[in-house]
Amino acid sequence: MHMRLDLNSDLGESYGRWTLGDDDAMLGLVTSANVACGFHAGDPTTLRRTVSAAAVNGVVVGAQVAYADIGGFGRRFIDVPPADLTADVLYQLGGLEAMCRVAGTTVRYVKPHGALYNATVEHEEQARAVVEAVAEYDATLPILGLPGSALLRAAAARGLRAVSEFFVDRAYTPSGSLVPRNERGALLHDPTEVTERLLRMLSEGLVKAVDGTDVRVEAESACVHGDSPGAVGMAAAVREGLERAGVELRGFA
Amino acid sequence: MHMRLDLNSDLGESYGRWTLGDDDAMLGLVTSANVACGFHAGDPTTLRRTVSAAAVNGVVVGAQVAYADIGGFGRRFIDVPPADLTADVLYQLGGLEAMCRVAGTTVRYVKPHGALYNATVEHEEQARAVVEAVAEYDATLPILGLPGSALLRAAAARGLRAVSEFFVDRAYTPSGSLVPRNERGALLHDPTEVTERLLRMLSEGLVKAVDGTDVRVEAESACVHGDSPGAVGMAAAVREGLERAGVELRGFA
Amino acid sequence: MHMRLDLNSDLGESYGRWTLGDDDAMLGLVTSANVACGFHAGDPTTLRRTVSAAAVNGVVVGAQVAYADIGGFGRRFIDVPPADLTADVLYQLGGLEAMCRVAGTTVRYVKPHGALYNATVEHEEQARAVVEAVAEYDATLPILGLPGSALLRAAAARGLRAVSEFFVDRAYTPSGSLVPRNERGALLHDPTEVTERLLRMLSEGLVKAVDGTDVRVEAESACVHGDSPGAVGMAAAVREGLERAGVELRGFA
Amino acid sequence: MHMRLDLNSDLGESYGRWTLGDDDAMLGLVTSANVACGFHAGDPTTLRRTVSAAAVNGVVVGAQVAYADIGGFGRRFIDVPPADLTADVLYQLGGLEAMCRVAGTTVRYVKPHGALYNATVEHEEQARAVVEAVAEYDATLPILGLPGSALLRAAAARGLRAVSEFFVDRAYTPSGSLVPRNERGALLHDPTEVTERLLRMLSEGLVKAVDGTDVRVEAESACVHGDSPGAVGMAAAVREGLERAGVELRGFA
Repeated sequence: MHMRLDLNSDLGESYGRWTLGDDDAMLGLVTSANVACGFHAGDPTTLRRTVSAAAVNGVVVGAQVAYADIGGFGRRFIDVPPADLTADVLYQLGGLEAMCRVAGTTVRYVKPHGALYNATVEHEEQARAVVEAVAEYDATLPILGLPGSALLRAAAARGLRAVSEFFVDRAYTPSGSLVPRNERGALLHDPTEVTERLLRMLSEGLVKAVDGTDVRVEAESACVHGDSPGAVGMAAAVREGLERAGVELRGFA
Repeated sequence: MHMRLDLNSDLGESYGRWTLGDDDAMLGLVTSANVACGFHAGDPTTLRRTVSAAAVNGVVVGAQVAYADIGGFGRRFIDVPPADLTADVLYQLGGLEAMCRVAGTTVRYVKPHGALYNATVEHEEQARAVVEAVAEYDATLPILGLPGSALLRAAAARGLRAVSEFFVDRAYTPSGSLVPRNERGALLHDPTEVTERLLRMLSEGLVKAVDGTDVRVEAESACVHGDSPGAVGMAAAVREGLERAGVELRGFA
Repeated sequence: MHMRLDLNSDLGESYGRWTLGDDDAMLGLVTSANVACGFHAGDPTTLRRTVSAAAVNGVVVGAQVAYADIGGFGRRFIDVPPADLTADVLYQLGGLEAMCRVAGTTVRYVKPHGALYNATVEHEEQARAVVEAVAEYDATLPILGLPGSALLRAAAARGLRAVSEFFVDRAYTPSGSLVPRNERGALLHDPTEVTERLLRMLSEGLVKAVDGTDVRVEAESACVHGDSPGAVGMAAAVREGLERAGVELRGFA
Repeated sequence: MHMRLDLNSDLGESYGRWTLGDDDAMLGLVTSANVACGFHAGDPTTLRRTVSAAAVNGVVVGAQVAYADIGGFGRRFIDVPPADLTADVLYQLGGLEAMCRVAGTTVRYVKPHGALYNATVEHEEQARAVVEAVAEYDATLPILGLPGSALLRAAAARGLRAVSEFFVDRAYTPSGSLVPRNERGALLHDPTEVTERLLRMLSEGLVKAVDGTDVRVEAESACVHGDSPGAVGMAAAVREGLERAGVELRGFA
């Protein structure tokens, strides 16, 4: 059996004087970089540096579009009217695309960040507004998101490629959604357990939920966190485990 | 004798709730629109609307790049390190380009705004930083600026097309520079005088300076202001005067 | 019968290069100024100028606190965690207070702006977060808001003075809430009708709702808009009508 | 001989998701905290937390006022017109004061940050603009700055108390100014050398300059950095050395 997987991570999230995460280390481990676009993080100099390093490492660049909210790191829902949200996403795509152009690469997919990611799981209007921007900008760009989300449904309905992702270190509920971060057991910390769970998801399409039952999860990409302490170690362990199991690591886009 | 001229104006300078200028009226009069890029003015929705209207009117779109300074409208010099300034300009070019792409047009030239325009008249490092961004992004894009400026010299030295502009309603010193705005007589208000001066500049390459002497000025483009009271009236009078004199109005880019 | 009323209006809402409303004219008409605090509008220079003019005119200054959202003019709900919202309100109170101090006055009340005003009609957590800031900062400051709102309930529960306001040019539903702006008939434009309605509210505590029935409304303050075309004319007409009817115009705070 | 000294450090410089420095550790070591005011760093929640911790530790709070430049961390000169700069400083003083008020303390002095600190060493207009804000706000507040700077001269001329500071880990030129950061030997790293130099400055008023000659330096306060790796260690070593030598550590304000 031949298995293939993409590993994605949020990068380019420093801002001016403030550093977040270790982009250089992560770019040696992942196959897709969700690069911030300046609205929740990522000043232009940071974006340029991260995109250049991604290009050098052969890592695919995606646009991690967000609400305009530097102070809140894009983690607070903002009730942006759909037409404004579409324009915001277009602007971010363009800003990141310029950095890609001078680095000899291009934006290859789109993934919403933080509160926009969470909102577009159910918020049909905002989901369509994001999809509208991508469809008008470049209808060949896939959208990366949560399986079953309004976002992926809207993408498919608009004729875009909708790509599902799995969170390697997040616990799942029996219905296949993520256990909220503030609940007990929401985060997995053991690299061995995380890797085994990921391999089972790949081979069987099943994951053990927080209550011990099996839940069906299918995903082309797996998200590893880039900004927590221990992020690099976890990503390295996951990558090594996948390679040892013969999984081909390759960008989905 | 066949004369040709471009008329350019600063547009897209509203921001969220705040409106500035009358973009729709001006887009019926000018041949090139220096559209704000979000750093000194121009939220994404405004940019999209202005670029779309420019495309509909057949007006050429240029990127009016600026310091990141919404509160100061880009009118305050900021000592941005060159590498950061290059990244800032790239980001702005990309943001505006995305709006052009969905409107079926492209960014066709670059003109710095406000304090960045003024700084790059003499500030060699910042001039080169702006030029560097344009050269890396698309070396076929002309740069529009003040004749004799460090910016246009740097553009030419880098192999870019450097386009000179004339300010229709600004008084000139005997050495060919602009009379500072806060000095007496800095601004011309009579449309007839403004139009006659412009026609003489076109046919003879001469302008009467503030002291009455003639000064040599050559320019491919003439800048009309878009945001002052009476801006539309002045632009309309200038355009009508040019057309009556048989001057062909056409974008330089 | 002796009647007394406060007239309040949103002021200080210019920002840098962009002007909104005619603060000088409005300060000759109202008794209370809801001055922006820099988060949705109002750069420090604007705040200083507006507060100084208010002091000169003997107009009471209130803090018009808002979400941090210059681009959206504070009109988009933001899901700010309560502790952060309390800190945001404290910071805004302080910023405006500094302008009051140098103008020889003080912040005398608090009124949320835009989406924060609308959210705290029902959002108990954010309502309490705003009240918490005011209570900690100065528990003698009244809060101005919509009758029956979560905000005014939370203020009263915390021992603050809760002051109800009436919107002079907004239509009311039979249940006493405002007809949404985007619905037909939401805005009243006839100064005579507006003034008569206001006088009846004052004398009888009744207002004719949009369906023709009478609805009970009691308010110590009446809000007149400051930023629409015709705002000054409407405010002047209302003030003149009130004075002619012998109503004493006086700040509530 | 009884010697007394203040130790000051820049704190409150985190921003939203981004952490900078270890405020809690530093607040156990310094006697004065230059707390950011939200213009170059320090969101309201951070400011509140830092000010509260300062109050608990008995550390004096000063306002570290800056240019409005989150993206540049206040390290880029901005040519702000003096009246706007005065308003900016007033607003920052007020914002921080609100945090002090709810923590049971007050702003006790003012120190410009970064590029504003450097600019006001020589820029007379901006120096006077900062001093003007402080004088109008509270003329009993001292200003902390570089000996011989335009800022301290303007403060003294306006009747404010001007307090000189010494940089514990920065090399000095023979004329008593700081060796620019990007030059060799600009930074001292050996805690023993740093402490001995500081003690000699205190007892003799002399410091060995970068060329080996002695230069006269007098200061009531010594600045220790809070945001570099090893900052806490250096500050702890300096404090211990001062205490061992019998120097009384006490806020100057």
